Amino acid sequence: MHRAFEIATRGPGLYEFTRDVAAWVAGCDRDEALLSLMVRHTSASLLLQENADPEVRSDLTEFFHRLVPPTTDPSMAYLTHTYEGPDDMPAHIKASLLPVSLQIPIISGRMMLGTWQGIYLFEHRTAPHRREVIALLR
Amino acid sequence: MHRAFEIATRGPGLYEFTRDVAAWVAGCDRDEALLSLMVRHTSASLLLQENADPEVRSDLTEFFHRLVPPTTDPSMAYLTHTYEGPDDMPAHIKASLLPVSLQIPIISGRMMLGTWQGIYLFEHRTAPHRREVIALLR
Amino acid sequence: MHRAFEIATRGPGLYEFTRDVAAWVAGCDRDEALLSLMVRHTSASLLLQENADPEVRSDLTEFFHRLVPPTTDPSMAYLTHTYEGPDDMPAHIKASLLPVSLQIPIISGRMMLGTWQGIYLFEHRTAPHRREVIALLR
Repeated sequence: MHRAFEIATRGPGLYEFTRDVAAWVAGCDRDEALLSLMVRHTSASLLLQENADPEVRSDLTEFFHRLVPPTTDPSMAYLTHTYEGPDDMPAHIKASLLPVSLQIPIISGRMMLGTWQGIYLFEHRTAPHRREVIALLR
Repeated sequence: MHRAFEIATRGPGLYEFTRDVAAWVAGCDRDEALLSLMVRHTSASLLLQENADPEVRSDLTEFFHRLVPPTTDPSMAYLTHTYEGPDDMPAHIKASLLPVSLQIPIISGRMMLGTWQGIYLFEHRTAPHRREVIALLR
Repeated sequence: MHRAFEIATRGPGLYEFTRDVAAWVAGCDRDEALLSLMVRHTSASLLLQENADPEVRSDLTEFFHRLVPPTTDPSMAYLTHTYEGPDDMPAHIKASLLPVSLQIPIISGRMMLGTWQGIYLFEHRTAPHRREVIALLR
């Protein structure tokens, strides 16, 4: 009862894949279980966040960009791991601050998400990436 | 082996519900299991934190208030999702920074919390709310 | 299917214990499972982070030292929980910002970590400590 999801990203921001996960969970036909999702990278995160107003997602991206700016910003001059680009070390920091995995209870066959909760991959790198998320139902 | 906990909140801060969870776990009579708790909202969090000195909780609330101030603060003027009140978008940000779910091993029938670890709902909104937490034992 | 790991720390920073966990998981001989790790403290964290360049770890430690400086720093004068030392309340704050537990899918008997993901205890206190991490396979 496991599978991998691949998410293609084109720069920093939140990429929703709630529907893909819900479809897979439905196909697994489990009444009660725990769904685990884990991203196999150290520069991207997973997030349960609001799925209504898209401004919430752009505001989130902007907040984290300001909290952890690129290493070209004078305030980040103390960082030493810079040879993979000005967005690399900030991406590792954001990937520490934000969840690397999500656990969602399955009851009566469906994810117990709240009305406004969607499942997102949060990309922290600038260049396009293919991100892998492992899903496990136990 | 699941249930919902309802927690009534009256403004930002930490609300403990360790005893309610411990009583439910004891009633489930499981020797070894994983307890999952997930909050069904995008503007409140769950936290394992110190249950001794209440100043730890007020200091935590104040730190997060300063790290992510209301949108009326000039430093937050760049945020665009403001129509649900000055505490709404900061609440979404705090709910991204702090855990949406907790996983606690159950061994010999009891939660393996450390001596000083209590289970808290961390409310980020100003108005009173009723928050729902889903608990699952697997 | 559980055990405790003890990690001796000598000041703030990341302490890797991936190999210890991998050896224990291999000995458990489970084909498919969910591995949970939980730290039983409120002033240390767990982290999946890059296991290649050690500068990533020292940069992470420095970022969190600057985001949450000791209470002797004038910017932290508002904190009230100071009688356990200038590094204590900042340690509680970091332990709220960073994960207290990790969940890692086990498939075909091995942890599904990405190529660059290592398992770390992140110590936030200055004095040496012995930290306990509970591991559970379900």
